[in-house]
Amino acid sequence: MSRPLKIAVAGLGTVGVGTLKVLETHARSLERRSGRPIAVSAVSARERDKKRPVSTDGLAWYDDAAVMAAEADAEVVVELIGGPDGIAKQVCEAAIAAGRHVVTANKALIAEHGTALARAAEAAGVSLSYEAAVAGGIPIVKALREGLAANGLSRVYGILNGTCNYILTNMRESGRSFDDVLEEAQRLGYAEADPGFDVDGIDAAHKLAILAALAFGCEVDFAAVHVEGIRRVSPLDIRFADELGYRIKLLGIAALTNGELEQRVHPCMVPVQAPIASVEGVFNAVVADGDFVDTLMQEGRGAGEGPTASAVVADLVDIARGYATPTFAIPAAELRRLAPASMQRHWGAYYVRLIVVDRPGVFADIAAAMRDFDVSMESVLQHGRDPGETVSVVMTTHETEEAAMTGTIQAIESLDAVVEPPCLIRIESFAPPAARE
Amino acid sequence: MSRPLKIAVAGLGTVGVGTLKVLETHARSLERRSGRPIAVSAVSARERDKKRPVSTDGLAWYDDAAVMAAEADAEVVVELIGGPDGIAKQVCEAAIAAGRHVVTANKALIAEHGTALARAAEAAGVSLSYEAAVAGGIPIVKALREGLAANGLSRVYGILNGTCNYILTNMRESGRSFDDVLEEAQRLGYAEADPGFDVDGIDAAHKLAILAALAFGCEVDFAAVHVEGIRRVSPLDIRFADELGYRIKLLGIAALTNGELEQRVHPCMVPVQAPIASVEGVFNAVVADGDFVDTLMQEGRGAGEGPTASAVVADLVDIARGYATPTFAIPAAELRRLAPASMQRHWGAYYVRLIVVDRPGVFADIAAAMRDFDVSMESVLQHGRDPGETVSVVMTTHETEEAAMTGTIQAIESLDAVVEPPCLIRIESFAPPAARE
Repeated sequence: MSRPLKIAVAGLGTVGVGTLKVLETHARSLERRSGRPIAVSAVSARERDKKRPVSTDGLAWYDDAAVMAAEADAEVVVELIGGPDGIAKQVCEAAIAAGRHVVTANKALIAEHGTALARAAEAAGVSLSYEAAVAGGIPIVKALREGLAANGLSRVYGILNGTCNYILTNMRESGRSFDDVLEEAQRLGYAEADPGFDVDGIDAAHKLAILAALAFGCEVDFAAVHVEGIRRVSPLDIRFADELGYRIKLLGIAALTNGELEQRVHPCMVPVQAPIASVEGVFNAVVADGDFVDTLMQEGRGAGEGPTASAVVADLVDIARGYATPTFAIPAAELRRLAPASMQRHWGAYYVRLIVVDRPGVFADIAAAMRDFDVSMESVLQHGRDPGETVSVVMTTHETEEAAMTGTIQAIESLDAVVEPPCLIRIESFAPPAARE
Repeated sequence: MSRPLKIAVAGLGTVGVGTLKVLETHARSLERRSGRPIAVSAVSARERDKKRPVSTDGLAWYDDAAVMAAEADAEVVVELIGGPDGIAKQVCEAAIAAGRHVVTANKALIAEHGTALARAAEAAGVSLSYEAAVAGGIPIVKALREGLAANGLSRVYGILNGTCNYILTNMRESGRSFDDVLEEAQRLGYAEADPGFDVDGIDAAHKLAILAALAFGCEVDFAAVHVEGIRRVSPLDIRFADELGYRIKLLGIAALTNGELEQRVHPCMVPVQAPIASVEGVFNAVVADGDFVDTLMQEGRGAGEGPTASAVVADLVDIARGYATPTFAIPAAELRRLAPASMQRHWGAYYVRLIVVDRPGVFADIAAAMRDFDVSMESVLQHGRDPGETVSVVMTTHETEEAAMTGTIQAIESLDAVVEPPCLIRIESFAPPAARE
């Protein structure tokens, strides 16, 4: 049998432990698939003596992961520390500088420094692999880099954060508030103690920026992603969505629009018939629209020890077989720098929920504001009627430009009878790409 | 730029033309991804002078595809003729014998001769690639060979025939009969003039046998697939399914059960909440259950010029990059020969629809037949009541062994009051693999 592929693992948290478990459980099968054994030779973690469910006996131990990346007896460094900068970045840079392949699950790192790292890896003649960084167990990086290689892609979108999808699913099923469900998710381990990274959309935005670079052959541009989280989605909105035939999902959407790169993460109203509407709970899904393949959806677990480790090890098998696909599918020097599409020029339909004092003339004022900005109403719903008290009013619009909606919302917000900032949620009909041109 | 990858294309039907279109449309992008141009050097088809939407000017023309496979100036032969034997098989064998890689969309060929061809390809040091043979545009072969390489798979199943799914979807939406909807599908080009290959489940069985070999590392065993088609599904069954919370889908299901290979294609009752239940129309979907990744579903177009050509060209890009994954993920010599699981030992719940004369005592006779075979009823539905006339009665059972159901059905069928052969449809709850052990 050929010489083993030796790997050094930086970080022995959930994913690091999972990776060691996969390598041990399926050693023989992985060797068959790879044509050679995959052997961990070195590990690094914060605490050497911590009790772990996998043994590190016989492996070289490094207190400093960057030193390990530079010096360990390994062809591949697996970076599972996390974070866009600091030690994780040092580990990857040191590994590349030392001519070692890098496998990482670090979405923040790839989203913020992906282009530079891809250039460095290419110059050094090593692979930079990150299947585990996007949508966990779903092999979407491979699908975009290889499986859909024959397509020009016009759009890629998905449910990229399991915590948000769990919260939105649970809010709908239980009728409870965001805060209530978040608190429960934290108790169950589906949400972090500091949930902002997930519920404010940052994590989804990291993944979306990576998907966009892969789909469109462009430099990763995380800073240009328009990001809104789910904190403002209320049980009222979820009820109205049901009534209107929608589900509320936090989506990341990237598209090429008139040669500009559209990247946005925000809550969306999705028709219940759309396949992505029935992706529930902690599951992730990614949809790609290509000119030959039409539409492809993948659904699976986006996080967790097993699915993430599955993705890490798939990357290792490719490296063991000698496969070296460019980081973002084409040579780094050929990645385009795309101008970001302006969110104010976004074209679409909108859902607006207002809390207003129920008195004569209010609706005339709202309608006038819409007319002034040339926004055309599609439907209006109002539940209950308590003269002098507040009621919720929901409107959906026909397609219009975001700038017009922004103006409309500002005008409506300034009305005396409107007692809370309006809640605006974009409606995504998922018309086929051809129909969008 | 490096030397081009020269390819010879055998067959210029829908997929052949589509492949040439993709190669022309995305020539520059494919070159970037592959590191070298992909160039068609030779073609073969039945009629040289036929009008085609792509030009074959400047390409070497062969009347005999097998001669082309052996002699053309090409590293890869793309076989798009179809059929399990005859010229298609000769083309692939000639190509392999001449040391050329083979890319094929031919599910019948791989299902019936996959193991032998894999051995031959491996001995010759060439690739045998067939992404287009299973589920068209869905890159499921790549997902099973590479993306899920880190997993032990326990089950793979899916909607593998778009014609059947189109017919079943349409029957449900329109309430019309199988024959009616088939006739319409034929008019619209979704079904062949001779529909048996699709509606009798053969096509799905070809694909399932390939998926099973990939998923479980075993020899392809098409002959062992239990196959039933959808001709006997009636509008009544579809209505009852709705009422019971199910959708009827033609599924292909392959699983490892006590070390035996279970492979079956037949109509199934699937809970409406199951993600696969909402895969409608001509779409295909494949679900894989792995020990680390948990469950992964892919949904997309399973046929047609664009999606199939997309898969063919993805295989070409891999070959251009020098990737050579073993045909069924592991070396051909290591493919296991698995004993087929007996269908009579299948364990599951059942839906049975009877047409009976509505008179006293009938139901007691039916219940006695079930008791005699130890089959326990879960629910009974009867619509209408016309003493002395025929009515339809539907029962669902708790889980039981297929042999017991076979006995029960024979006993019921022999009753005077039962006026038509009972219709039996297996219920698939898709319990997580862990719960099935």
